[in-house]
Amino acid sequence: MREVLDLGYARIDLGREARQGLPEVVYGPGKTVEQITGIVSGLLAHNSGPVLATRVAPDTAAAVLRRVDGGTYDEEARLLVWRPAATGCFSVMVVAAGTSDRPVATEACAVTSAVGLDTTVVHDVGVAGLDRILQVRGLLQAADAVVVVAGMEGALASVVGGLVRAPVVAVPVSTGYGASLEGVTALLAMHASCAAGVTVVNIDSGFSAAMAVHRIAQARPPADHGGSK
Amino acid sequence: MREVLDLGYARIDLGREARQGLPEVVYGPGKTVEQITGIVSGLLAHNSGPVLATRVAPDTAAAVLRRVDGGTYDEEARLLVWRPAATGCFSVMVVAAGTSDRPVATEACAVTSAVGLDTTVVHDVGVAGLDRILQVRGLLQAADAVVVVAGMEGALASVVGGLVRAPVVAVPVSTGYGASLEGVTALLAMHASCAAGVTVVNIDSGFSAAMAVHRIAQARPPADHGGSK
Amino acid sequence: MREVLDLGYARIDLGREARQGLPEVVYGPGKTVEQITGIVSGLLAHNSGPVLATRVAPDTAAAVLRRVDGGTYDEEARLLVWRPAATGCFSVMVVAAGTSDRPVATEACAVTSAVGLDTTVVHDVGVAGLDRILQVRGLLQAADAVVVVAGMEGALASVVGGLVRAPVVAVPVSTGYGASLEGVTALLAMHASCAAGVTVVNIDSGFSAAMAVHRIAQARPPADHGGSK
Amino acid sequence: MREVLDLGYARIDLGREARQGLPEVVYGPGKTVEQITGIVSGLLAHNSGPVLATRVAPDTAAAVLRRVDGGTYDEEARLLVWRPAATGCFSVMVVAAGTSDRPVATEACAVTSAVGLDTTVVHDVGVAGLDRILQVRGLLQAADAVVVVAGMEGALASVVGGLVRAPVVAVPVSTGYGASLEGVTALLAMHASCAAGVTVVNIDSGFSAAMAVHRIAQARPPADHGGSK
Amino acid sequence: MREVLDLGYARIDLGREARQGLPEVVYGPGKTVEQITGIVSGLLAHNSGPVLATRVAPDTAAAVLRRVDGGTYDEEARLLVWRPAATGCFSVMVVAAGTSDRPVATEACAVTSAVGLDTTVVHDVGVAGLDRILQVRGLLQAADAVVVVAGMEGALASVVGGLVRAPVVAVPVSTGYGASLEGVTALLAMHASCAAGVTVVNIDSGFSAAMAVHRIAQARPPADHGGSK
Amino acid sequence: MREVLDLGYARIDLGREARQGLPEVVYGPGKTVEQITGIVSGLLAHNSGPVLATRVAPDTAAAVLRRVDGGTYDEEARLLVWRPAATGCFSVMVVAAGTSDRPVATEACAVTSAVGLDTTVVHDVGVAGLDRILQVRGLLQAADAVVVVAGMEGALASVVGGLVRAPVVAVPVSTGYGASLEGVTALLAMHASCAAGVTVVNIDSGFSAAMAVHRIAQARPPADHGGSK
Amino acid sequence: MREVLDLGYARIDLGREARQGLPEVVYGPGKTVEQITGIVSGLLAHNSGPVLATRVAPDTAAAVLRRVDGGTYDEEARLLVWRPAATGCFSVMVVAAGTSDRPVATEACAVTSAVGLDTTVVHDVGVAGLDRILQVRGLLQAADAVVVVAGMEGALASVVGGLVRAPVVAVPVSTGYGASLEGVTALLAMHASCAAGVTVVNIDSGFSAAMAVHRIAQARPPADHGGSK
Amino acid sequence: MREVLDLGYARIDLGREARQGLPEVVYGPGKTVEQITGIVSGLLAHNSGPVLATRVAPDTAAAVLRRVDGGTYDEEARLLVWRPAATGCFSVMVVAAGTSDRPVATEACAVTSAVGLDTTVVHDVGVAGLDRILQVRGLLQAADAVVVVAGMEGALASVVGGLVRAPVVAVPVSTGYGASLEGVTALLAMHASCAAGVTVVNIDSGFSAAMAVHRIAQARPPADHGGSK
Repeated sequence: MREVLDLGYARIDLGREARQGLPEVVYGPGKTVEQITGIVSGLLAHNSGPVLATRVAPDTAAAVLRRVDGGTYDEEARLLVWRPAATGCFSVMVVAAGTSDRPVATEACAVTSAVGLDTTVVHDVGVAGLDRILQVRGLLQAADAVVVVAGMEGALASVVGGLVRAPVVAVPVSTGYGASLEGVTALLAMHASCAAGVTVVNIDSGFSAAMAVHRIAQARPPADHGGSK
Repeated sequence: MREVLDLGYARIDLGREARQGLPEVVYGPGKTVEQITGIVSGLLAHNSGPVLATRVAPDTAAAVLRRVDGGTYDEEARLLVWRPAATGCFSVMVVAAGTSDRPVATEACAVTSAVGLDTTVVHDVGVAGLDRILQVRGLLQAADAVVVVAGMEGALASVVGGLVRAPVVAVPVSTGYGASLEGVTALLAMHASCAAGVTVVNIDSGFSAAMAVHRIAQARPPADHGGSK
Repeated sequence: MREVLDLGYARIDLGREARQGLPEVVYGPGKTVEQITGIVSGLLAHNSGPVLATRVAPDTAAAVLRRVDGGTYDEEARLLVWRPAATGCFSVMVVAAGTSDRPVATEACAVTSAVGLDTTVVHDVGVAGLDRILQVRGLLQAADAVVVVAGMEGALASVVGGLVRAPVVAVPVSTGYGASLEGVTALLAMHASCAAGVTVVNIDSGFSAAMAVHRIAQARPPADHGGSK
Repeated sequence: MREVLDLGYARIDLGREARQGLPEVVYGPGKTVEQITGIVSGLLAHNSGPVLATRVAPDTAAAVLRRVDGGTYDEEARLLVWRPAATGCFSVMVVAAGTSDRPVATEACAVTSAVGLDTTVVHDVGVAGLDRILQVRGLLQAADAVVVVAGMEGALASVVGGLVRAPVVAVPVSTGYGASLEGVTALLAMHASCAAGVTVVNIDSGFSAAMAVHRIAQARPPADHGGSK
Repeated sequence: MREVLDLGYARIDLGREARQGLPEVVYGPGKTVEQITGIVSGLLAHNSGPVLATRVAPDTAAAVLRRVDGGTYDEEARLLVWRPAATGCFSVMVVAAGTSDRPVATEACAVTSAVGLDTTVVHDVGVAGLDRILQVRGLLQAADAVVVVAGMEGALASVVGGLVRAPVVAVPVSTGYGASLEGVTALLAMHASCAAGVTVVNIDSGFSAAMAVHRIAQARPPADHGGSK
Repeated sequence: MREVLDLGYARIDLGREARQGLPEVVYGPGKTVEQITGIVSGLLAHNSGPVLATRVAPDTAAAVLRRVDGGTYDEEARLLVWRPAATGCFSVMVVAAGTSDRPVATEACAVTSAVGLDTTVVHDVGVAGLDRILQVRGLLQAADAVVVVAGMEGALASVVGGLVRAPVVAVPVSTGYGASLEGVTALLAMHASCAAGVTVVNIDSGFSAAMAVHRIAQARPPADHGGSK
Repeated sequence: MREVLDLGYARIDLGREARQGLPEVVYGPGKTVEQITGIVSGLLAHNSGPVLATRVAPDTAAAVLRRVDGGTYDEEARLLVWRPAATGCFSVMVVAAGTSDRPVATEACAVTSAVGLDTTVVHDVGVAGLDRILQVRGLLQAADAVVVVAGMEGALASVVGGLVRAPVVAVPVSTGYGASLEGVTALLAMHASCAAGVTVVNIDSGFSAAMAVHRIAQARPPADHGGSK
Repeated sequence: MREVLDLGYARIDLGREARQGLPEVVYGPGKTVEQITGIVSGLLAHNSGPVLATRVAPDTAAAVLRRVDGGTYDEEARLLVWRPAATGCFSVMVVAAGTSDRPVATEACAVTSAVGLDTTVVHDVGVAGLDRILQVRGLLQAADAVVVVAGMEGALASVVGGLVRAPVVAVPVSTGYGASLEGVTALLAMHASCAAGVTVVNIDSGFSAAMAVHRIAQARPPADHGGSK
């Protein structure tokens, strides 16, 4: 099979689906309607799994949907999806510290859902009101993987990392002002976390967190999902 | 009264005791035994309250103590004290996230004790084991002021800030490695804290935190200490 | 009593009033009129103290005020307030270095006033004209707490910190250009201050400074306010 | 059961084993022989799984081993281990870019081995000689999880991330000079990686990477290890 | 001959063509139509080689072209050219990691072409799909010089640097978000590259890379171009 | 006259004395006794003014003095001087914020004295004790130029800049810890100073400040020194 | 005489003229037409020297000029001036590296002229064409003080600093892109300059440079201006 | 032929000589005598060109030379060489700004010489004494390539870049103090250089600069070296 599809403006990595279990995902910013349409059509034709385009503005999304059948658009997540996967039994819990972290958390949820993970989200459980976290402690401990979305000082990652045994992927968010340094403070703080084994992805990248969880879910054989722990 | 005592190598601010309720405190690093001796003697002669010298190495401390009577040295806190104040009823709780934060917490405690505050310390209550904090919740809520000492990501400041109504002074610590950036990450994270009204002092400065609490304690008339809240 | 009110888009920390002496404060940016309305209504219904929303744009504020009775809006401070506290006898002095620091100083004043502190403000007392500070020396020394608002090099915090015995909370401001680095220089300089016991809050956060003083004011029993010092 | 064991100088989180599947791990730097001995003894007495102490100097290690029976010391990894877990069937591949990255890679391997993961390591496969990576492509693709250890520009993480479907945990290393900025460049570059779903841990922290993989391995029910994929 | 032409608003370095083999190049931003027109006319009158103006907006370009005959404008490269050099036999390959790097790559190509280098470009060969690079390995190895244009983590520079013997000039690009730090991460990573002898120019400066290659091409006597290697 | 004296390991700029009013100054670090001896001898032979070598360690200084007659060494300033200029009537006041700033202030004084400026120094006038500055206000206002030496937050530069009409050269010092960032905070703060027309030199460079004042003193014709103002 | 004029929104430092030889200068940004009008009127009424307002937008300037007689506006310099000083004999040379540095150079010139200094400007003498600098070498060496305005790498400051004996004040400019870091690179490079005694002011602050020269000019008795050197 | 030689502790890239014209170069730091000996022996056995080991301490070098015949050690350059190439006719000029830059310049020279380039060095031509550069202008313009080694503000790169038409590779050096930021300032300044087409390598890496020139020299057919330009 061809490994690369050369469209001139893009060289699509067709082998990625076989190699990594998911077709290449289209990063929207800086691409024209024609470019997104071309890449998506190529992926739909030569791959068989879910096709996603991230960070797509509403106008662009509408134009692409008119040209490529069968897609849906989630405006809050800014995500275009074709051929979403059926929901499996690997469960992901997305927790967000504040309401300002909502857009990033939404992107994470939309992507994990589109690739077939069983996703739940809880908003506004910042550590300044510890009772809010303790209330969802049971939910957190039942998840197969947890995504923590937090701006400001990012302390939620350490607290959740200490509560659960499952993999924790932390997403620093560029909310806040001043000393938040547009998410750099949260990124550094999450790395310096006192909770062992918490991993971190790029600032505001709900998408990266979702893909990290997708990799983890693939580390478990499908038939075993839901097994006791 | 003379406001300034000029020793040539130092100009002592004798008026500070009247102005701020505590004689000038001697910062040890870079000063010789003779200089510390001279400044301490000057302060003892012209002021009447506690005289402190911070960050003094053991050898230097021993030499100074031989020349100026009546002082004591706390090696862990690296603090020299003459004429400590009697313990009043303003209570300070110092909480430290990990054992590496101990030296800074110890300096904070030694200074608050020397200026007459009723000081308690709890070590090793990092947020990765939330139960450790919840166990001391009652103690924290009973304190008139809380000093939080934490390196790494500094998340303890946010958690404690959300639990108590009292003033919280956070001290970032230069422990940790890599993304901790020698305390800068904790400093920024504490400023970006989601808990409202937490204040921050310089990295590793248990002394500054103690002095901040000393200012707060002075905001209450002495006769009223211990009043119900 | 319920500790958390779950509105879906927000989980309100109802217990904060009992725990910290003030209901949760709504941070405006990124929230819709509906969301602010919902949270404010929830706080008014389940808590009894002052309800505040900060950094609210005029249009949003007007829309919220039409839906929730009894509120007032301070446009300069961008603050919405319902049920302001009666003014007590704990006095706060807010000093601002330059006219560019005015918006941050105004937010600090509006919040301290709303929570019942007896607030005075003095503008434009930058250290380049030392006489301006010396003229208000008496006022500064009479205050129960001082908030210093300064951008550029933030030197005012050190100077005021050396003049008064009361707690000093410094707010770095993002005014200035070039080497001011959007307030980071002032933040670092205030931490490196040679005046002992000055504490610092996040850049531009008049709100944080006000909340820090609110914590300090609570450290004094109400009946004792105004006591001699 | 007791959740916390208070030794005065440390408050051991005994519940961590039940909560997270592994007893608390002792971070060596800054602790005395007596402190490490005390904490290790407490964990051995109250928990039943592997007990580890990281970053322990040879002298300290020898002294601790004389006081607590049954431990072993890996000098290159600076790791003390008691009661290591039997090796299971979850396979981890650790790849290191250069020989300078060896100490960090060794720590990662020693920890994953101690907690029962089936660990392999390949050194010196930097991207400047692409054939070296392509030679081990099969090994990489067979692993259940991959740890990438790389200093300088950290490009190996992107390359490996694009080759495998398994979870990839990247560890930036503080080797290199000048523009390497003691590992900060590699950390940032790994976050900016063009390979989706690569996660990152703190600079030089082979330990954190190992713990992240331990979390992932626990996301699979023990009975299913070795299942076909 | 006059070395400097003084236009008042600019002092044109007429000697540069003799000294460096190419007339001074006009940097467009901040210059008015009149200023660009004046400088270009001066260069055309007193020098004999190609005259270029970079980073010129479409409107400005159109206005200048109306006043100075014989020029052409490449809108994607934002480049104005008069008297382009005939294409010689020194070959340059420009490789770009992603589609977002296209504008910078286009500027590099337009400038190398204008000064007479035989230029080829390949887009979208990021290292996450290694097969895409391996497919063009032959083309890369045949080039006399290679320009690598990459944002995010900039890993392409290391990979290409390891594949070819020719000079490699790397251009970091300010695409990406969060940890990309507007190109600073790619710049630092390219400097820390494990591939020996890769050189780096300023962020987004396709122009600087082109000029660096122009210098290299001049290091070979014209008659020898195309000689076997 | 020869403009450059080529010693192989150094190319001495002999013309500097005529061009700038002072022979080249030897920067000691990294130079051997033989190299310093050679350069100093060359300058003594071919120039006629003061010859200085800065930042010279005591051992090196002693060895050089044994080989080159007529020099003197100031150990505190780490300065070697031959042929010092007679003291003129241009007065320089050096003020230092704290005792830790003393070494830098001493270097500034030793160099200004060696080049013939009438130098006075006052130590320990930090802004936390404003009375100390006000006491020397008259002295400051009488000086022809003022050098301000300050670490930590560097606020002294703003305060002095507001008090005097003379040129003020500020030297940031790398004392302090944590947020002082080894002098970078003071450097930035001095640049952001609210006092107009204060200039800044490199961190810890008492030498640069002295040379800046030497330039200023040369802007006045020698005969006019001491003229009324 | 009154030292401070309190307008409520501003506290004018009336004593500055006596203390520093020039009335307070009004910083325009963030001030309303009414505020500028008020402060300017106050200064004109109570002081006798030149009154300046910097960084004033054209619309604001026009409105202020309609309300306060006798002023003039320099749009390129964004400067309002009333009662400019007569031109004296202290000569200032302003040199700018490139045409992008023109606005900052213009502000420096306008302010030095307004306070009575004899000002000349030369544009576009960047070091990449060394002949352009060498051509103006004589002019530079004749000046009583030199202001160097340069963005990008700021190398012009070192080169000019090595050519003249007069005071050199360097102004880093925020032109350039990428590694220029909005002027921070030029600022740092000017401080690290190999030319001794060059001083630096804040990024883009032509005003600060002008005020620094004003201080220097005052260090010479007026009657002696133009004296031989 | 085998592409990779696996020594366990290292995987030698044997194909690099064929691919890039030079065997892999051994980076000394962190390697034992045994490891360097093993890698060097492997390269001597399987490749035929020059074998180099950089940054080797004297003791280590002596031990390696005792075990592997035929090598030489340059202590100032810290370089071990076996089988140096015969000197060809491609000429390289290395210019260093100050004597502190000497070690880096020496490494560059030693490596270019070892790989057969005709190398000349000139020390101490910093831009503060412009005559020193102008004196060697002819030498610079005659070179096939120029390496500029400079710390502090790195201005020499811009000046040389403007004087020659040949490729210029700039090496920032970590000399200087304070604002030099250990070479980062010079690195940034060289990137922001106003001289077009100057390229930059990592801080202190005389080796990288040499390898960059080696790449450039290979871009010219060997028979043509020395051809007229």
